[in-house]
Amino acid sequence: MRIGVLTSGGDCPGLNAVIRGAVLKGTKIHNQEFVGIRDGWKGVVEGLTMPLDRHSVRGLSKQGGTILGTSRTNPFEGPHGGPENVQATLDRIGVDALIAIGGEGTLAAAKRLTDAGLKIVGVPKTIDNDLDATDYSFGFDTAVEIATEAIDRLRTTGESHKRCMVVEVMGRHVGWIALHAGMAAGAHAILVPERPQSMDQIVQWVQSVADRGRAPVVVVSEGFTLDTMETPHSEKGLDAFNRPRLGGIADVLAPEIEARTGIESRGTVLGHLQRGGVPSAYDRVLATRLGMAAIDSVMEGEWGTMLALNGTDIVNVPFEHALGGLKTVPQHRYDEAAILFG
Amino acid sequence: MRIGVLTSGGDCPGLNAVIRGAVLKGTKIHNQEFVGIRDGWKGVVEGLTMPLDRHSVRGLSKQGGTILGTSRTNPFEGPHGGPENVQATLDRIGVDALIAIGGEGTLAAAKRLTDAGLKIVGVPKTIDNDLDATDYSFGFDTAVEIATEAIDRLRTTGESHKRCMVVEVMGRHVGWIALHAGMAAGAHAILVPERPQSMDQIVQWVQSVADRGRAPVVVVSEGFTLDTMETPHSEKGLDAFNRPRLGGIADVLAPEIEARTGIESRGTVLGHLQRGGVPSAYDRVLATRLGMAAIDSVMEGEWGTMLALNGTDIVNVPFEHALGGLKTVPQHRYDEAAILFG
Amino acid sequence: MRIGVLTSGGDCPGLNAVIRGAVLKGTKIHNQEFVGIRDGWKGVVEGLTMPLDRHSVRGLSKQGGTILGTSRTNPFEGPHGGPENVQATLDRIGVDALIAIGGEGTLAAAKRLTDAGLKIVGVPKTIDNDLDATDYSFGFDTAVEIATEAIDRLRTTGESHKRCMVVEVMGRHVGWIALHAGMAAGAHAILVPERPQSMDQIVQWVQSVADRGRAPVVVVSEGFTLDTMETPHSEKGLDAFNRPRLGGIADVLAPEIEARTGIESRGTVLGHLQRGGVPSAYDRVLATRLGMAAIDSVMEGEWGTMLALNGTDIVNVPFEHALGGLKTVPQHRYDEAAILFG
Amino acid sequence: MRIGVLTSGGDCPGLNAVIRGAVLKGTKIHNQEFVGIRDGWKGVVEGLTMPLDRHSVRGLSKQGGTILGTSRTNPFEGPHGGPENVQATLDRIGVDALIAIGGEGTLAAAKRLTDAGLKIVGVPKTIDNDLDATDYSFGFDTAVEIATEAIDRLRTTGESHKRCMVVEVMGRHVGWIALHAGMAAGAHAILVPERPQSMDQIVQWVQSVADRGRAPVVVVSEGFTLDTMETPHSEKGLDAFNRPRLGGIADVLAPEIEARTGIESRGTVLGHLQRGGVPSAYDRVLATRLGMAAIDSVMEGEWGTMLALNGTDIVNVPFEHALGGLKTVPQHRYDEAAILFG
Repeated sequence: MRIGVLTSGGDCPGLNAVIRGAVLKGTKIHNQEFVGIRDGWKGVVEGLTMPLDRHSVRGLSKQGGTILGTSRTNPFEGPHGGPENVQATLDRIGVDALIAIGGEGTLAAAKRLTDAGLKIVGVPKTIDNDLDATDYSFGFDTAVEIATEAIDRLRTTGESHKRCMVVEVMGRHVGWIALHAGMAAGAHAILVPERPQSMDQIVQWVQSVADRGRAPVVVVSEGFTLDTMETPHSEKGLDAFNRPRLGGIADVLAPEIEARTGIESRGTVLGHLQRGGVPSAYDRVLATRLGMAAIDSVMEGEWGTMLALNGTDIVNVPFEHALGGLKTVPQHRYDEAAILFG
Repeated sequence: MRIGVLTSGGDCPGLNAVIRGAVLKGTKIHNQEFVGIRDGWKGVVEGLTMPLDRHSVRGLSKQGGTILGTSRTNPFEGPHGGPENVQATLDRIGVDALIAIGGEGTLAAAKRLTDAGLKIVGVPKTIDNDLDATDYSFGFDTAVEIATEAIDRLRTTGESHKRCMVVEVMGRHVGWIALHAGMAAGAHAILVPERPQSMDQIVQWVQSVADRGRAPVVVVSEGFTLDTMETPHSEKGLDAFNRPRLGGIADVLAPEIEARTGIESRGTVLGHLQRGGVPSAYDRVLATRLGMAAIDSVMEGEWGTMLALNGTDIVNVPFEHALGGLKTVPQHRYDEAAILFG
Repeated sequence: MRIGVLTSGGDCPGLNAVIRGAVLKGTKIHNQEFVGIRDGWKGVVEGLTMPLDRHSVRGLSKQGGTILGTSRTNPFEGPHGGPENVQATLDRIGVDALIAIGGEGTLAAAKRLTDAGLKIVGVPKTIDNDLDATDYSFGFDTAVEIATEAIDRLRTTGESHKRCMVVEVMGRHVGWIALHAGMAAGAHAILVPERPQSMDQIVQWVQSVADRGRAPVVVVSEGFTLDTMETPHSEKGLDAFNRPRLGGIADVLAPEIEARTGIESRGTVLGHLQRGGVPSAYDRVLATRLGMAAIDSVMEGEWGTMLALNGTDIVNVPFEHALGGLKTVPQHRYDEAAILFG
Repeated sequence: MRIGVLTSGGDCPGLNAVIRGAVLKGTKIHNQEFVGIRDGWKGVVEGLTMPLDRHSVRGLSKQGGTILGTSRTNPFEGPHGGPENVQATLDRIGVDALIAIGGEGTLAAAKRLTDAGLKIVGVPKTIDNDLDATDYSFGFDTAVEIATEAIDRLRTTGESHKRCMVVEVMGRHVGWIALHAGMAAGAHAILVPERPQSMDQIVQWVQSVADRGRAPVVVVSEGFTLDTMETPHSEKGLDAFNRPRLGGIADVLAPEIEARTGIESRGTVLGHLQRGGVPSAYDRVLATRLGMAAIDSVMEGEWGTMLALNGTDIVNVPFEHALGGLKTVPQHRYDEAAILFG
């Protein structure tokens, strides 16, 4: 067989380790050939390939990003999209089966394609850890580690100036990175999309920390929103939350906290820092194992399934398990973290 | 209630985060008082305490080691040992219940004491990840990360000189650190206590890497032993494995590889580096959660149980679950890693 | 003698190491006593002190921030300011001489106070490396290291998505951090306050990198300004440079580059990340040596002087040497870095 | 011109950055061609080359080791050695001038070859910082940083167990790495080749730290020797210093300290860890500048000279300046560090 591998959606530390795991097991154990599909589904639609042999994955486990490139193309759009066209392209470039590494959009597309008869196995990728079917996904641990180290650093400068430091981490729809990094670094408030909070509550946490003579640290997910039931004190500040803006929510939240408490406050937006660079050892191991299991699934013809972490085991689950809804931070995990607040 | 906390056995990144988690939840949610027991069971036997309030755990999650100190004292030995004496001492220092953070020896002692009526809850600690009752234990992730970064570094100097680099990691009885760090860093051979190998096999892996023009990297657990069935080539070298020695097994293995292959080889023993310093974010979160769950168990009077990680949940299990035997690297996990060898 | 120590202005990795160096040498070699002045000149004016003995500096060399706190108070302002009042306060709190650790403002104030007869020795502090009298100042190396690691990370995500990554580093008036971090990380353009550039020039650098199939990396000092002589293409974009804004200049520059080139661009503002946390070994050694030399200067009564790095030596220079003007990036150093551009 | 570049002797973080600096400036500014000489002088003698164009140095500044390979071959030995043979080989492979990056041996060989008329410019390389002609050499800062982080880690485990931690760092003939890492990490004793100490002195430092309730940290250069004037307490221990041994001097010193003080002691040999991996930003900048200056020297025909750091400037000095003798730790620098001892 000649197996195509693609990476799709936002990049994530560990993508290259998945590719390496699949190629090494596929070539050394199963004697299969591989071809790299470039730039995600765009490469499938347009037939863009690159060589992907054992030599080309050498030293990849520690390399951030993806050597295959990525895009947000949807394989159902455009004149060359849709199952028939895609199958025709795969035939033309000599690809018998696909390993698709991507997030919810990628897995949803892969499901529709396998439903139409294409041979695809998936590997879930979400730096936000928002897929329900797997305990953790690779990239998340690295993002949490980077965010935690950043908060550790920001805390010392906060303490020196008695400032409130507001740190924005990734998480458009779920707050897992904020939850873990905040717990790890000892944040005094963790603001996640799943739990809107009022400015009054935030101010109370911040003020109680300052009252104990310490410098408050607030960790906020990029997708956090204010609880709209509150009575606004400062219209100007709250407006800023809803306006299109340069910078992130931390850039709005910090001045608002300062305006309400009189405590000097500074925002930092970690942004793309969290998705680049050398993956943590945890992510490298997880990603390597997922890649190896993916080629096993290909060999067994488990089309329409993806690999997932269940405890310490890599298991095979149907695509639909990952597509049922976001894995949000449950109440008991938020309550657990909230013990550290204030 | 007044709850004593002790840490026992070899130290491990995350001990302080467990202590912090227990004290913060215990004081803020359950309104309990804490007292630190110094130097493990020694402190119980001799009644050595230190204050342990909310203020004293400030900033602890990122701090390596244990503020309580540790020792390898057995609470059943000596004139003041045994259940009656220990209970008398706890009464004297006003301790109503104990949270004991330690490895197999500690948990075994805690079991015997709870069998005799003492009120103890355990938190498992093993940097080697060798306890069966928990998916992972805190400290392991940090150790793997440190070892992985070290192997990353050693690889570049190996490549420059075309040398074989032999890296010794912790693991007296089990090879989990070697397995994970070796997979993460792309080792060409991983030698673990559970799988004795012959020098012939090791040399074959090393040689095949060198034949491809690359610099071989061998990761070895401190507890690895040679397969004794092999016919020795170099008596001198094999002797060295069995003699008492300064340095570690890497210091023996490297010259033996060099003698047999002619490839310049260098050993590095990571040793205590792996157990010190700032814990990884993963370990801080796990340890904090274990500490919080431990105080819940105390409040519920779950004496004779310990906390464990099961998937993403912290669960309560009887001590005996942790005492049944070492959690060794299973065959399928070793085979998975072995795909990278040679 | 009883010697007061203060830290003033923005914090900086290494402040605590200076304090430790002064206190350890002062107590162990010179048998002097120390007292900590809290929150910079504010503590001098208001007589705020804290104990500062050998025990209180234990383990400080690796700790970011300043245990003394800091502020931007000017000792000549307010009802208790000015030389006579300050001297009176120092007499009252029993301080015979001062070690003032701070930037240009602090050193200027210290100069005026020593001109009026007060006994002050200075230690220059500038994370931006903008003081002329010293080869390097502590904190700069750490900031460059943090920025370099961040750019390394951002590069991999840029390459995966073929995006232009714009990274904003500290440097309000001088571009040293941008220059060093950009050279270290291999930036394709380095934009510094000393060298305004036109959008056309920036776009040309970015485009030529993209044309070679690579992802452009632009490093920009917070104080960079556009060359106003250029003919603006996109008024909207250029307006944004001059308007008050949330976020940093990278948040403006990235969309402007994207608008002009069609290359997806992302801005990241490192901000306070660069001034917090564990100092690099380089900064710890430099800061420790400066602290030790400062107490020597006190013992020798070298009032009105500060310590500076000259090659590998710590030397004593008059305050005015540091006050003559900013140390800007010279043309030949910028040209050297520019070899890497485009 | 066609310029050959070689790296010789032990590898060192920054070698690749020197190569990159020379090639980028040489191709972009001076329009010269480059060829890589493989494995140091061995490649010159045997005519082993590899392509070295702008594309091949992409991303090299952060990569440890040397892409050219290295060896300890002496170009004056063997049937093809000596100036005439080397010149003939260079003619054959079309090399007009050489940039030789290496330590004292390399520079000495380069001097003899230039004395005989060959066109060679040198770049000094010594991770130990033992060359007199330059303030610092690249690789040293990275080694100090790695050693400092390791000591930070070891300290926490030492404190938990009240153990004495003995850390061996590089430095066969000079103690610069020990001096800087020891100062940075707050060691209680720093043992360097330049200052033999008696066991009695070492034991006194260790004991006084333990008496204060702290865990002693001893940093020792691999080339440290005992002061032979002392009266030995433990013949067995001192013998061990002089016997050939597996492991390092820390493996001997730790048990000897334990035997004499009764304080549990553990040795760690950092070894090759210090020379591998990603260079620090400091070393990347220094190495890049040295590489750029080297190609300038080639263009100006400054044969027989090498590049050196003088304050913040890169300057050109004759080879003989680097060959006069080792740059040892001067008394005043050791005394400065010794303030932290005990």
